[in-house]
Amino acid sequence: MPISREVAVVGTGVTPFGVLYDRPYLSLLHQAADEAVADAGIELDRVEAAWLGTAEPLLAALIGDSGAAVTEALGFAPRPVTRVSNFCATGMEAVRGAALAVAAGEYDVCIAIGAEKMRDVAPRGSLVAKTVEQSHPAMAKGRTAPGQFALVAARYLHEYGYGRDALAQVAVKNHANAVHNPKAHFRSVITTDQVLAAPMVADPLGLLDCTPTTDGAAAVVIASRRWAERYARRYALIEGIAVASYAGYYPALFRTDNDFLGFAATRDAAAAAYRQAGITDPRAQLDVVECHDCFTITEIVNTEDLGLFGRGRGGAELLAGATAADGDIPVNVSGGLQSCGHPVGATGVRMVAEITDQVTGRAGTRQLPGARRGLAHNLGGPGAVAAVTVLGAP
Amino acid sequence: MPISREVAVVGTGVTPFGVLYDRPYLSLLHQAADEAVADAGIELDRVEAAWLGTAEPLLAALIGDSGAAVTEALGFAPRPVTRVSNFCATGMEAVRGAALAVAAGEYDVCIAIGAEKMRDVAPRGSLVAKTVEQSHPAMAKGRTAPGQFALVAARYLHEYGYGRDALAQVAVKNHANAVHNPKAHFRSVITTDQVLAAPMVADPLGLLDCTPTTDGAAAVVIASRRWAERYARRYALIEGIAVASYAGYYPALFRTDNDFLGFAATRDAAAAAYRQAGITDPRAQLDVVECHDCFTITEIVNTEDLGLFGRGRGGAELLAGATAADGDIPVNVSGGLQSCGHPVGATGVRMVAEITDQVTGRAGTRQLPGARRGLAHNLGGPGAVAAVTVLGAP
Repeated sequence: MPISREVAVVGTGVTPFGVLYDRPYLSLLHQAADEAVADAGIELDRVEAAWLGTAEPLLAALIGDSGAAVTEALGFAPRPVTRVSNFCATGMEAVRGAALAVAAGEYDVCIAIGAEKMRDVAPRGSLVAKTVEQSHPAMAKGRTAPGQFALVAARYLHEYGYGRDALAQVAVKNHANAVHNPKAHFRSVITTDQVLAAPMVADPLGLLDCTPTTDGAAAVVIASRRWAERYARRYALIEGIAVASYAGYYPALFRTDNDFLGFAATRDAAAAAYRQAGITDPRAQLDVVECHDCFTITEIVNTEDLGLFGRGRGGAELLAGATAADGDIPVNVSGGLQSCGHPVGATGVRMVAEITDQVTGRAGTRQLPGARRGLAHNLGGPGAVAAVTVLGAP
Repeated sequence: MPISREVAVVGTGVTPFGVLYDRPYLSLLHQAADEAVADAGIELDRVEAAWLGTAEPLLAALIGDSGAAVTEALGFAPRPVTRVSNFCATGMEAVRGAALAVAAGEYDVCIAIGAEKMRDVAPRGSLVAKTVEQSHPAMAKGRTAPGQFALVAARYLHEYGYGRDALAQVAVKNHANAVHNPKAHFRSVITTDQVLAAPMVADPLGLLDCTPTTDGAAAVVIASRRWAERYARRYALIEGIAVASYAGYYPALFRTDNDFLGFAATRDAAAAAYRQAGITDPRAQLDVVECHDCFTITEIVNTEDLGLFGRGRGGAELLAGATAADGDIPVNVSGGLQSCGHPVGATGVRMVAEITDQVTGRAGTRQLPGARRGLAHNLGGPGAVAAVTVLGAP
């Protein structure tokens, strides 16, 4: 059977995101899974297989080269655990792996878990250190994540005549949203002036244009629609899920046809997911969007790539409040990566959990009234790969 | 639809395995995929999605944290590429990922690729170095792969009264088989005396009891049975494919119920795959077996765990010639890991390619007459995880 509307998310679990030096990787993973299974109203024994999304496992433990962390943390043996990774879109790959297995009829109930320890990492093992160490010398200079997304930001501001205040508005909006998300890393309101006055990281991106460095884990229980109809307390149907992969770091960024104003991977993944979900007018047909906002510019260009706004219009719609929690098409009501942080493997799973909670009416004080269909978008590589999941109330 | 008999392998490709300092990772990956696609009689354009199995990507390039190597090597954008890893069973996880996606009806034609560069790795990045560096000091001593499998070998010889000549016979048999495999790393006949006289690595395992350190890649094209019936030149049906995961290194080896005489992961994965394939008497119903033989002892105990022989009988059946190419149930006609080598991510895919070639009558001078159904077994972790694939002629 196809995935579309035949596979459901029946339980969600998200740990607090933050600087969690006191929480080992296995502990975070266990907490998220435990919460998701409890939320599904089942025992862990009922879960037949697991997918683990974790992008930088060697930073935590060698067992990350496999799914063994799940086996150990949950006592999951002898059930299969498969580790997947795909840059910063790793989390949604875990969801897709579980969804494909359920759609294949191989299992009724699976779990997708994303987890990442980003903080307690020796400097020489950090993403930035590796990037510099393993790159061609001429390319390694400044080839950090902020450095690369700054190229997009500079081009976008120049091309469409926006100022840095447009970027800042993403951070301001998402921080305001995060006040209502008890799991977010940062839960304080910030002002445009604060964003503009923050130390510059990679012009035009300042410190508050960047996602923080955050530990955390998230999990979702995935089941067949038939199982969900029969046993789930509540559920969201996966109406579409798709991944698009362009080449690695350099080629994706420096493709001759890259205008530095958007991401082809997002456009392709969205097109595929929309086809599965029967979406032809995303702005009208979606009630809520989780959009990858590792940097403020990332949200703006991706809302365009997702087809919510025309090219160059993302900034204007943002400034006009269209993507605010009370706007026409709320984006990152959770607080996004800007406020939740971005434990790489966890992020895509957290987004799917967030949209599931919204369309099942369980998003607490940040619940959007009448949310029936939403989208989660996860970018990686940077911009080389994208994953899009459309979730809807049954 | 279920995987069993609804998913087919329609093309295989394997690079020469060996010490390939002159061959970059991307080049090996490309060659294997190119050969598999050509073997399927299709253009690469027809392939809709890819799964990449690679276990130690950071040793080669950061892009290994994703599937971007496939995108770059094949010009595969914008199609999805998912990287999977599961210790030394990583290759078969790639096959399983593609098979589940096809079974889900999401794609008609996918490719599973396994690739690994094992040789050109800085010493501090090697598996052994990492093992020692990242382990608890008390456990790190001798906790190399040979050190761990030596525990099983010593116990097996002691428990059942075999000598080291039983272990040696695995190496002798598999090297003899590899003479007929042009892709194998080692293609020379060796004698029992040579194996017994080789330098000791971890008593009772000598140098010729160990798989060499080898570079290589392998790929298989996976399609729906419907597609295969219509378009494939020849194909093997996946009758069963299953993974079992026990805990990571220490717990799997040092479980209180581990008798050091076999691997529960193999028994569980085999039971699941046999159930899918309708196999109740594996020795009678299988014509050919690829069995993970990273060390000589690994083949002996796993042939028992796969249900080919009773407990303690693996050594005797081996010595009696049951697993020889002209024996009752030929094991590792390819030469196995002992002679092909073990580029970690590639091995499981190579095994599936080997069995596919055997049951479609295309295994060259090592073809077993009348082979109709075979099994590929991939172990990892060590012994923590196992994957079993049963393949049959349509």
